[in-house]
Amino acid sequence: MRIDILSLFPEMFKGVFGESILKKATEKNAVEYHVTNFREFSENKHSQVDDYPYGGGAGMVLKPEPIFNAVEKLSKEQDSKPRVILMCPQGERYSQKKAEELANEDHLIFICGHYEGYDERIREHLVTDEISIGDYVLTGGELGAMVVVDSVVRLLPGVLGNEDSPVKDSFSSGLLEHPQYTRPAEYKGWKVPDTLLSGNHRLIDEWREKESLKRTLNRRPDLLKKYPLSDKQKNWIQEWKNPR
Amino acid sequence: MRIDILSLFPEMFKGVFGESILKKATEKNAVEYHVTNFREFSENKHSQVDDYPYGGGAGMVLKPEPIFNAVEKLSKEQDSKPRVILMCPQGERYSQKKAEELANEDHLIFICGHYEGYDERIREHLVTDEISIGDYVLTGGELGAMVVVDSVVRLLPGVLGNEDSPVKDSFSSGLLEHPQYTRPAEYKGWKVPDTLLSGNHRLIDEWREKESLKRTLNRRPDLLKKYPLSDKQKNWIQEWKNPR
Repeated sequence: MRIDILSLFPEMFKGVFGESILKKATEKNAVEYHVTNFREFSENKHSQVDDYPYGGGAGMVLKPEPIFNAVEKLSKEQDSKPRVILMCPQGERYSQKKAEELANEDHLIFICGHYEGYDERIREHLVTDEISIGDYVLTGGELGAMVVVDSVVRLLPGVLGNEDSPVKDSFSSGLLEHPQYTRPAEYKGWKVPDTLLSGNHRLIDEWREKESLKRTLNRRPDLLKKYPLSDKQKNWIQEWKNPR
Repeated sequence: MRIDILSLFPEMFKGVFGESILKKATEKNAVEYHVTNFREFSENKHSQVDDYPYGGGAGMVLKPEPIFNAVEKLSKEQDSKPRVILMCPQGERYSQKKAEELANEDHLIFICGHYEGYDERIREHLVTDEISIGDYVLTGGELGAMVVVDSVVRLLPGVLGNEDSPVKDSFSSGLLEHPQYTRPAEYKGWKVPDTLLSGNHRLIDEWREKESLKRTLNRRPDLLKKYPLSDKQKNWIQEWKNPR
């Protein structure tokens, strides 16, 4: 997979792309990152990339030309048609399902604005996807792009070795993960639950399934609505709600 | 504000904390960042920070000692009691409201695990907040911590100059932002809407209000449920649904 990032702050990406799994993924040739400052694609002698909004108002708006020019050039770097992704608060809310979809592509181009708005023609005629990572305000699209890249790259074949595999992926299973404990068995007087030390795997599995369900019920009832509960799980929930 | 980050990959933060608004905020003395590798707080001669989960299963679990030791030491760096924030998929979903709440604190300590789970005693006895930035799987808590830091630091007094102010903060107003346009008035045959070029500010304001409402209705009806619609806005929505 080739990943292109368009940003006015290319230095922001070095630490994140140069460490851990995202670095390993390049060493394994699963991915190639290219970060481009789209200021280089300005047609303006002052290398201007933004301008005042038509109709007035505060803030600046990113001009269409530099971003169209950059995307048009970078699109030619791969044979396949790229997904052109605009990071913005108006985009669809990012999800694990979207990460799985993007992981099937050959070429992703991310457009990261930085406190400016985007000229609407970029949205209408250039991008294929608009993504928001959540309902909070960030200074720019850069962190959002890093989040999307991280979630996609870890899904590419061969990137996660067994040693790196998550204990359990909360959003892949549909329930939140159950509590985990490791040594010491007692720390500051707080003990690991007896069941987990029992060696009885039937009891351990049941304990984990119950705790996972309880945690989801208490913290994220919205996830439970979409989850196909078994009859056993439904009975547990009834018992917790109406203890005998 | 003092911000402490506990991570096994401290290099990841350099690019992000050293650029743009997050850098400006340190120059304006609004914030101080400290990134600590909690491996230094291991009591183990091999500097071990994780261990196998009790009860079996794949993956590793972060041990309590290094993280308790690090948080206990860093808590003494400020007079006020810190918020100790665990970045994890089981946490509350991050929101702009939470960002505003955290911006009132003097000291934030972020704990970032990296593909491992956390020993449950960390959750139960050490942290004050558990935060998830969204329903997708990331390799570690580092990107989540950067997202939270960015959204909080930009709210600190004096950090955002007028020149940096966003065109409009989508999640602060409750509606998604209306389309924006800047020069050129025509690009590749695509024109800026006449209203925005009219100079009539009453019409421009009405156009923007309608477009903002339309976009929220089409893309994020869930946001509209919480939004106090005016009678005029309710009438517009009725007209769009039942065009005469």
